[in-house]
Amino acid sequence: MIVKNVASQAAFRPDKMGKADLLRTERIFTGLNCFEPGQEHALHTHSGQDKLYYVVQGQGIVRVGDVETSIGPGDLVLAKADEPHALRNPGSERLIVMAIMAPPPAAK
Amino acid sequence: MIVKNVASQAAFRPDKMGKADLLRTERIFTGLNCFEPGQEHALHTHSGQDKLYYVVQGQGIVRVGDVETSIGPGDLVLAKADEPHALRNPGSERLIVMAIMAPPPAAK
Repeated sequence: MIVKNVASQAAFRPDKMGKADLLRTERIFTGLNCFEPGQEHALHTHSGQDKLYYVVQGQGIVRVGDVETSIGPGDLVLAKADEPHALRNPGSERLIVMAIMAPPPAAK
Repeated sequence: MIVKNVASQAAFRPDKMGKADLLRTERIFTGLNCFEPGQEHALHTHSGQDKLYYVVQGQGIVRVGDVETSIGPGDLVLAKADEPHALRNPGSERLIVMAIMAPPPAAK
């Protein structure tokens, strides 16, 4: 299964971070987190699931544990299970981040 | 843990596809597959592991099962466990693909 140009799947919302599912199996999940300027995904954890963030487009500030870092296109971030993490878009351009989780979250 | 600009981690070899590990946990693995023009990763399968390919740079031709497709930057490919898959660089530029596996392969 192939998703061409993942950024084309981005789904933005005016009120909060938008999400777009890309691929899901019983072992792994991939989706987009889409941030308008100023939007954020508040600090949270996943129990028993590791998460990768890969920046597709834009600039962000990620926090994992007690470390906060600026990230941009091509940067990869790991938040291991139970590590608190947050992500926000401090810039003036849209931010698109691919989130990958293993094992996958429960389907909605 | 953060890997800035994953493409900067690329490792090419003159004789065959190069590999560069990026991140590994007990649940997920991420690394780069790096192809000089003309190089390929021959058809293979992973038993019990799902794999994602994300094209970071360059153009490739991926095969999953019986389907062969051209892919370029921003394209995402899923090869589920036991699905035969192959990847080659038919172009004149280098190809860098991020491979993500869950669960991870055995450490070497």
